[in-house]
Amino acid sequence: MKCRKCGRKAVINMRQHKLALCAQDFLTWFVKQTERTIHRDALFEQGSNVLVAVSGGKDSLALWHVLQQLGYPCNGLYIGLGIDDGSAYSDRSRACAQQFADQHGMNLKVVDVAASHGATIPEAAQVTRRGAGKPCSVCGLTRRYLMNRAALEGGYDVLVTGHNLDDEAATLMGNTMNWLVGYLESQAPLLPEKPGFVRKAKPFHRFYERETAAYALLRGIDYIQEECPYSADAKSIYYKKVLNQIETDRPGAKQAFYLSFLQARDQIQFTGSGERGPLPDARCSTCGQPTRGGRQCAFCSTWQNVRARNKPLEPGR
Amino acid sequence: MKCRKCGRKAVINMRQHKLALCAQDFLTWFVKQTERTIHRDALFEQGSNVLVAVSGGKDSLALWHVLQQLGYPCNGLYIGLGIDDGSAYSDRSRACAQQFADQHGMNLKVVDVAASHGATIPEAAQVTRRGAGKPCSVCGLTRRYLMNRAALEGGYDVLVTGHNLDDEAATLMGNTMNWLVGYLESQAPLLPEKPGFVRKAKPFHRFYERETAAYALLRGIDYIQEECPYSADAKSIYYKKVLNQIETDRPGAKQAFYLSFLQARDQIQFTGSGERGPLPDARCSTCGQPTRGGRQCAFCSTWQNVRARNKPLEPGR
Repeated sequence: MKCRKCGRKAVINMRQHKLALCAQDFLTWFVKQTERTIHRDALFEQGSNVLVAVSGGKDSLALWHVLQQLGYPCNGLYIGLGIDDGSAYSDRSRACAQQFADQHGMNLKVVDVAASHGATIPEAAQVTRRGAGKPCSVCGLTRRYLMNRAALEGGYDVLVTGHNLDDEAATLMGNTMNWLVGYLESQAPLLPEKPGFVRKAKPFHRFYERETAAYALLRGIDYIQEECPYSADAKSIYYKKVLNQIETDRPGAKQAFYLSFLQARDQIQFTGSGERGPLPDARCSTCGQPTRGGRQCAFCSTWQNVRARNKPLEPGR
Repeated sequence: MKCRKCGRKAVINMRQHKLALCAQDFLTWFVKQTERTIHRDALFEQGSNVLVAVSGGKDSLALWHVLQQLGYPCNGLYIGLGIDDGSAYSDRSRACAQQFADQHGMNLKVVDVAASHGATIPEAAQVTRRGAGKPCSVCGLTRRYLMNRAALEGGYDVLVTGHNLDDEAATLMGNTMNWLVGYLESQAPLLPEKPGFVRKAKPFHRFYERETAAYALLRGIDYIQEECPYSADAKSIYYKKVLNQIETDRPGAKQAFYLSFLQARDQIQFTGSGERGPLPDARCSTCGQPTRGGRQCAFCSTWQNVRARNKPLEPGR
């Protein structure tokens, strides 16, 4: 298979685009496609001050790399979750993020949950009832909150995440298998700014996972390859498998599923969803963020509870 | 495993209902559940004059049997499609339907497409551009039209079909994988009567396929077991397989997918779908049925085309 642009040997064949490219032309194409997505979906404007949520995985590091190439002033944000589980997952993912930042002369802000809030995510999961002992629920809540706060406090125009089409399609399938109307309503590549919440965007949402992986690989980016050890039985990984099987049987089906949803959103009005809806005027008594809950937002009440119930930290931690 | 009602040996365990039953109690339960669905979903009223669309398969024959037991005046309608393909599929399915009617003293109306419209479904598929030579598109159009017309002409209150939860979930998955908003909007266990269209209902839409199969089996109903020979690569069969795999991995997922959709319909408004929407005042110049198309409805224009292009019928056909 030959590169459509230059005729040299292709390294990747993207069937859904009917496009085979060599390494050099793929890297150029990938950056241009990202720029096109940013403009096409009006994710953010040229010159926007961007905060990249960096996990140390291929998607977020590739995104950071691409945005820098496109000339956006962008810093990285790494949230230290304290996930060890024998594999030092958090330590190693942080090292990947830091090494990438150092190599490229980029600025990585690190927020360590245990240092700033008194417990790691696995410790927090054990003492709250959120997620029935599994850390995914408290982890999601914590990451969303801390990323949003860091972006607001840093004065960024937009917070971007590395979600790719496979991620989005798997989330969509999870939301669809139970018709979670509130989640379907809020699943979008762009969540505009609103009081207390920074603008959020997903510039890679039109790329297949194999394309973001190819970019990271061909750029020689050293990223953490395994998934979080707690995500093994996560729904999204399960639905990724299901979608990959469907994609094998019916090439293009995964992309059609996700992109047709984005189009259908214009023809669907979600009403009375209860779960989402306009935020009330109420503000959290602890942090001041708009909240649907009672006096405190979910983050503050959860972590107040965690600190009250968690065993005292060892000195020097 | 013992029958929850009488303690005898159970023949079926319905995990989603946490209910194991013996043959006798299952048959009683199945009939009562059908009645409950008819009332709960307001499908039709007691004493309604019902036309049952009968294919000769387990679902439609079981439905006909149950409705008669429930005291509804109901006749059957069989559409002869002329599908042979070496397996005499249409002849054998018609024989099953006729034998059932004769055994139970019920009245089966037969409409033979070739006799009344000049070509079998496979012949029609070859000469129209609908469905790219595959008969499923022209078959669906023809069956829907003829069933509706027979119900209207016969003065029936409602036309019922044997679609079960597996059928509906597979259709839903097909509609969802491409977010076909018009089809999502019109997928419902009840389509109310409107000018030119009889009320349509699916009394088995809450039963798993294995439950309707168990009813037919335990009642000794002789039905055609194989699928239509043209349906082998049909989307709905593919999505049934996918959903069965998901159901195996996550018991209850199939039912949750379909039933949560029915609930979500109340929270979703489908707008600007284009494909569906209120019918215009225009009527088909040939048959008088309301139509969205030009002068003729899709059925009349398709079959006019078929008769014009099909090779002359052999004498005596």
